[in-house]
Amino acid sequence: MRICRFNDNRVGLVRGSFVHDVTAALASLPTWQYPLPDHDPLIAALPALRPAFEALADQAPPLALDSVRLLSPVASPRKIIAAPVNYRLHHDEALADDSIHHGTNILPIDKAGLFLKATSSLIGASDPVVIRFPEARNDHEIELVAIIGTRASAVSADQALSHVAGYSIGLDMTVRGTQERSMRKSCDSYTVLGPWLVTADEIPDPNALEMELQVNGETRQSASTKDLLRDVATLIARASAFYTLMPGDLLFTGTPEGVSPVVAGDVMRARISGIGDMQVLVS
Amino acid sequence: MRICRFNDNRVGLVRGSFVHDVTAALASLPTWQYPLPDHDPLIAALPALRPAFEALADQAPPLALDSVRLLSPVASPRKIIAAPVNYRLHHDEALADDSIHHGTNILPIDKAGLFLKATSSLIGASDPVVIRFPEARNDHEIELVAIIGTRASAVSADQALSHVAGYSIGLDMTVRGTQERSMRKSCDSYTVLGPWLVTADEIPDPNALEMELQVNGETRQSASTKDLLRDVATLIARASAFYTLMPGDLLFTGTPEGVSPVVAGDVMRARISGIGDMQVLVS
Repeated sequence: MRICRFNDNRVGLVRGSFVHDVTAALASLPTWQYPLPDHDPLIAALPALRPAFEALADQAPPLALDSVRLLSPVASPRKIIAAPVNYRLHHDEALADDSIHHGTNILPIDKAGLFLKATSSLIGASDPVVIRFPEARNDHEIELVAIIGTRASAVSADQALSHVAGYSIGLDMTVRGTQERSMRKSCDSYTVLGPWLVTADEIPDPNALEMELQVNGETRQSASTKDLLRDVATLIARASAFYTLMPGDLLFTGTPEGVSPVVAGDVMRARISGIGDMQVLVS
Repeated sequence: MRICRFNDNRVGLVRGSFVHDVTAALASLPTWQYPLPDHDPLIAALPALRPAFEALADQAPPLALDSVRLLSPVASPRKIIAAPVNYRLHHDEALADDSIHHGTNILPIDKAGLFLKATSSLIGASDPVVIRFPEARNDHEIELVAIIGTRASAVSADQALSHVAGYSIGLDMTVRGTQERSMRKSCDSYTVLGPWLVTADEIPDPNALEMELQVNGETRQSASTKDLLRDVATLIARASAFYTLMPGDLLFTGTPEGVSPVVAGDVMRARISGIGDMQVLVS
C-alpha cells in the first residue's frame, strides 16, 4: 500500500499515477488536548486503518498525482534520527574534502552513532528546500528512510524490521560547517520526506534498493542500499538501545557518495526502487 | 507565576510550599486529531491562561508540594535544544579528562553550535533517571533552561528574551562516549525538567542566577549563569538562525564545571536561584 498526504492534510492511497482520497477514515483517530501523544497517531493506527483505506479508495474518484501538492507522508513524527557516514565511499569523500569535513573529526559510524534532526525541518516533496545560508555549501543527501510503526526499546537486529511501518525517500539536506550535525541538518525545510509511504510488506528487503539523485537532470548520487555499512535492522537496534522508538519516528539510513552543493533554482529528482520518485525544488 | 504539572496531568500554581490545582483552565485549549500541532499548546496559550490560572488558584485548596508527583512542566515540547561547553571551566575539564572527551574533538561553542536531545528522554523531577548503560560513565549536568513562548525565526539577540515564556532547572544527563551528543544525551529519562516553570517576568536577568548540584548531599557543581560563555539571548538568536523556535521548545543553556558520574541509588539535588530546587533519584 502506498499512502500519501496531500493538499490541505488530505490522506490518499496511491495506485499507479492516481491518488484516491481516503481522508474519511481518519475520523476514527482519537482526539487530543493536553498533553499531546508521544507518537504519530496515524502511523500508530495504520494496521487498523488499512481496511478502511482500501474500501474508501475503491470508491474514490482518481486524482492525477501531478495535480496534487504532496506533503510529508508522516505529519507528526516525534523524532527524526539519522545515520552519518553509512556508505564507505561517502565516508571516503567526506574525509578527503575539507569543504565537507570543515576540519571536524569524521568518526566512523560505529563510533559516531546516530544523530537527530529537528522535526520542524520536515517538508514534503511539493514544498521547496529553502536555502538558509546561501553563503555556505548546502548539499543534497538522498537516503532510504524507515518509518517506525510500533514502540521499540532495546530490540535486537533480528526483531528490528518487524517494528517498521514502511519506507519513504528522504533528503537529508545539509549545511556544511563545524556545527553539530543535529544543528546544521535541522534548518527549516532541510528534511524532505516523500513522495509517499510504501508499507513494509511491499519492501521485503530494504537492503537491496537502488537509489539515484539527479540535479537539473544530471546524476549526482547512484548507489544501492546493499552497500550500507550498517543495515536498516542494525541501525534500528542501535537507536533503540539508547531511546524508545515511537510510531512515526523516522530513521534516515545514511547517504551514499556523490553529495554536492545545490543553490536556489536547482531541481532535484530523487528515486528509490520499490518506492517511487519525487522532484523537489530548491529556492 | 510558578506553574507545575503534577500527578495524572494536573496543572497547578505553586505558591510557597503549596500547589493549587488549576487544571480546569485547560478546557479552553483546542483539541487536535491529525496532524498534531507543531508546538506545545499549553505554552502557546499561556498568556491567555494566566488570568484563569490565578482565579482558579485563589479558590483551590492548597496541596502540600511534597505530597504530589511532579511531572515535566512542559508536557509536549517539539524540540529540546542544548548548548555544549558553554562555561569556560567545564570546557577545560572536558578537554583535560579523557573519560569525558573519549578522544573526540571538543570544539568551542562558537564552532560546535547547538545540539538536539530527543523529546522521548524528557521526565519531571519526581521520576527517576534510569541509568541506561551502567557500564559507562553517566554524568549529571545542571543547566538553566529557557522555555520558548512564541515562534521565533532569525531573531536578534536584542529581541531574543521577548520570546521566552519562562525558566526551569534542567538536568542534561549524559552517557560519556564517542557518539554524537544528540544520541548519548537522549536516553529515556536523561532529560529532567523541573521542578516547575517560573514565568519570565519573575526572572529579569537570566544571566545572573546561582546554581548548585549536590549528589548524596555533597556539592559537585556550583556556579553562576553570569559565567555563561554565550548568554541566553545569544543562544536563542543562534538557534533561531538555523530553525524556527516554537512555543514549548526547550533550550538547555549548558553546564558549568564539576560534572561527575552518578550510579543507581544516588540522589541528586539541583537548585537555581529564582526558580527553586528539586530532588531527583537515580535508579
